[in-house]
Amino acid sequence: MSRLLAIDWGSSKLRGALIDDSGAVVDERSCERGMLRIADRAFEAALEAEFGDWLGLAGTRCLMAGMVGSRQGWVEAPYVPCPAGIDDFVRQLRPVESSGSGTARDIAIVPGATCEHDGVPDVMRGEEIKLIGAMELLGIDSATMLSPGTHSKWATVENGRLVGFSTMMSGEFYALLRRHSILSRSLPADDATLDGPAFDDGVRRAMAGSSLLQTAFSVRCLDLFGRLPRAALPSYLSGLVIGEALRWPGLEGVRSVVVIGSPLLNERFARALSLRGIGTRILGEEAAWRGLWAIDRRRPARVVEA
Amino acid sequence: MSRLLAIDWGSSKLRGALIDDSGAVVDERSCERGMLRIADRAFEAALEAEFGDWLGLAGTRCLMAGMVGSRQGWVEAPYVPCPAGIDDFVRQLRPVESSGSGTARDIAIVPGATCEHDGVPDVMRGEEIKLIGAMELLGIDSATMLSPGTHSKWATVENGRLVGFSTMMSGEFYALLRRHSILSRSLPADDATLDGPAFDDGVRRAMAGSSLLQTAFSVRCLDLFGRLPRAALPSYLSGLVIGEALRWPGLEGVRSVVVIGSPLLNERFARALSLRGIGTRILGEEAAWRGLWAIDRRRPARVVEA
Repeated sequence: MSRLLAIDWGSSKLRGALIDDSGAVVDERSCERGMLRIADRAFEAALEAEFGDWLGLAGTRCLMAGMVGSRQGWVEAPYVPCPAGIDDFVRQLRPVESSGSGTARDIAIVPGATCEHDGVPDVMRGEEIKLIGAMELLGIDSATMLSPGTHSKWATVENGRLVGFSTMMSGEFYALLRRHSILSRSLPADDATLDGPAFDDGVRRAMAGSSLLQTAFSVRCLDLFGRLPRAALPSYLSGLVIGEALRWPGLEGVRSVVVIGSPLLNERFARALSLRGIGTRILGEEAAWRGLWAIDRRRPARVVEA
Repeated sequence: MSRLLAIDWGSSKLRGALIDDSGAVVDERSCERGMLRIADRAFEAALEAEFGDWLGLAGTRCLMAGMVGSRQGWVEAPYVPCPAGIDDFVRQLRPVESSGSGTARDIAIVPGATCEHDGVPDVMRGEEIKLIGAMELLGIDSATMLSPGTHSKWATVENGRLVGFSTMMSGEFYALLRRHSILSRSLPADDATLDGPAFDDGVRRAMAGSSLLQTAFSVRCLDLFGRLPRAALPSYLSGLVIGEALRWPGLEGVRSVVVIGSPLLNERFARALSLRGIGTRILGEEAAWRGLWAIDRRRPARVVEA
């Protein structure tokens, strides 16, 4: 019996899943050892500390995606240019030389993807496995997809290939405005739960407005005139930012989007999309595991000497 | 002989000018004692420390504008609703009770302005005197104007009245992205001088793009692929943000804008506007002094007992 240790190693989190031959997730685990918190390039030690027990199981291969393959990561993996299908990612897998544990491991890193908009490049790293996994889980080969997050990725998949995508820095803009801007003085410390009507107001205002540069200031003005309770302002700001992220031109004419993210962001983006009359199919972290598993099944066998 | 001490007291700076009866600026002075740096509401002490010599001259009145009239300021002045002409600002001047120096002073604060966009309020405080001053200096009563800054204000003036305006948080977004976002890792510590072609690229990309949420990420990608030298990236980002600020719908069909700001921002906005085929007339701080002087000349005499 062989197993896959699937790793999604981003800037802030290290997540892993143990997957059996049938593709079933046997166990999952995550911790805060994101790439930005690894000192002195001690990547292998961190992986062994968190997942050594699974890695030590006989016949376990390991496939990693995310910032672990960036220039500052463990081993730099390339960006596969769009259009890119699953076999393009398989061909460009980067093996990782591992020996620190005294036992050779079969570890590889999935490449990212790149495309161009009018001569300017865009990149993703870690989201490509979710897009591939979503196709596998939903049994589809063409769709508009969204991986919401700090840097949200809108993507167009056609005939099983990623044909293009756009990054929207929605999560980062929200955090910047929430914590570091003048608006932070109007906002309560706690985000609390979503205020649906305030969020919807924000989305509608973003869609009707000209730019977040302008609409963001309304948070301050609504507070100044007491037009919206302070407790509702974070939801309103979230609606402004997420509504702005819906400006992606590729959404034109789209009737349904596959959204692959955390429960919180999935709910908010689905809500915002519904205000534009766009339906959603929702997936979570399972798409990443399924994507890594699908890539692993297609990669050529590697001989690892024990 | 009477004189006016004209004060522009914003969040970060305290600026003053001594103006004679003819409207000529006799002297100017500025310091870093912005409203945010005044502890324990010691506004009068700060004003006396910086401008006591001018205030002490016989027959000197003092007129102030800016954040000094906010709720957290010295005396809260109202927001005059648009459409608003100079007489509306004169009528709503707020006198300041001053006595700390042992000598009564004739001090008043100019109100701000407010307008609504689709039921959401917008405000300005301090820019209104520049708009009024620009009309006086240029001898015009109708124009599209811009006061660029942390919170840039686009304004439409018709028949001597401010009929509407929009705030764009351009300066603040630039600072947030420059200092606190992931882009800061790609940017050199020093902004250095303007790289014209890089700035123009940014403006054009902002005009062609869908949102700053999207275009901002190109700073990182251009750096990642070495497509733009790092030294040019701050200018490129500045172009992205300023180009985005040009999304104001009121610019539609406008052929010329009066830009009233610092030399650095005036140059950049004029450059960006020229890429849209829009001409500019440029003014600096003198517009604020002229606006305060024009308001002062229209206010009723106040009896101050010595």
